[in-house]
Amino acid sequence: MKHPTTHEEQLEFLRKIEGQVRGIQRMIGEGRYCVDILHQIHSIIAALARVEEKILEKHFGHCVTDAMQGTSVAEKKQKLAEILELFSRFRKI
Amino acid sequence: MKHPTTHEEQLEFLRKIEGQVRGIQRMIGEGRYCVDILHQIHSIIAALARVEEKILEKHFGHCVTDAMQGTSVAEKKQKLAEILELFSRFRKI
Amino acid sequence: MKHPTTHEEQLEFLRKIEGQVRGIQRMIGEGRYCVDILHQIHSIIAALARVEEKILEKHFGHCVTDAMQGTSVAEKKQKLAEILELFSRFRKI
Amino acid sequence: MKHPTTHEEQLEFLRKIEGQVRGIQRMIGEGRYCVDILHQIHSIIAALARVEEKILEKHFGHCVTDAMQGTSVAEKKQKLAEILELFSRFRKI
Repeated sequence: MKHPTTHEEQLEFLRKIEGQVRGIQRMIGEGRYCVDILHQIHSIIAALARVEEKILEKHFGHCVTDAMQGTSVAEKKQKLAEILELFSRFRKI
Repeated sequence: MKHPTTHEEQLEFLRKIEGQVRGIQRMIGEGRYCVDILHQIHSIIAALARVEEKILEKHFGHCVTDAMQGTSVAEKKQKLAEILELFSRFRKI
Repeated sequence: MKHPTTHEEQLEFLRKIEGQVRGIQRMIGEGRYCVDILHQIHSIIAALARVEEKILEKHFGHCVTDAMQGTSVAEKKQKLAEILELFSRFRKI
Repeated sequence: MKHPTTHEEQLEFLRKIEGQVRGIQRMIGEGRYCVDILHQIHSIIAALARVEEKILEKHFGHCVTDAMQGTSVAEKKQKLAEILELFSRFRKI
């Protein structure tokens, strides 16, 4: 596992993504070719998916690990249920 | 097929998505729970996927249909190749 | 575009996939580790997705191209609607 | 969480999926329309994805939970790493 992502790193990614979303608006305003716009939108989806994976990895390394080492059975169950739910949600765009 | 999306409608969607991306930055700044942030990021991915589908539908209804009714075999081939490429790209986040 | 897939090639792929599905049944019968079974199931999904792409590519190269060069507007519309529907279906597992 | 899946239930699902894979071979042999074949292949992918989710849910409820309640830090880390890897693999078909 690589170094866990920091809040600052996540914010930097998201500011870049925000800029990309504005870039799409510009492309639409300029009447650019739909296929180019579609590829650009898909790059943003891929960038968001990378942020998801980084946050998830950190969540596993911290919150989930802590809960698993704690004594509350209810909390363990809740963490596992949350992860299963994310799993099934992430499979569908 | 529903009414084709307009540039104005697409821009409105993208401005909303831009606001959602800023919302995520706020959530991170406030130290919100990772799982809530992950669900929120996934809502943005789903919203972008809806924009993709609308633009694609319009692309099919206009550019592809026009090319198919034209006489240039090269252009027909290019349109079909572009669509196949989008297909395979969209399957992977 | 590579050479279009033949029926014989598709059948060969599907016989291999059928064998993989039986392989999973064996793994379950032998009580193999769930994570190994999950990776194996996912390989089958990936193999089916490759068959889909090959058939789709052939469909584009033949049926869609023919319809587009024909004179029936209704048929052109139908082909495009079918493709759009496949697009949106393929995005969700 | 629903009742955990049993080996017998998984085998039954997989036998059904095996039959569906043979059904596709029949469709190809009969020269059926590509779009119908594509929809049928996608139903198999969806069925395999449901099996994945059932096995994963059971894996979480048993193996992961046990490891988390055990004392081996190495085992806990391994379980979490395995889950992260499945997560990122499942996102791509």
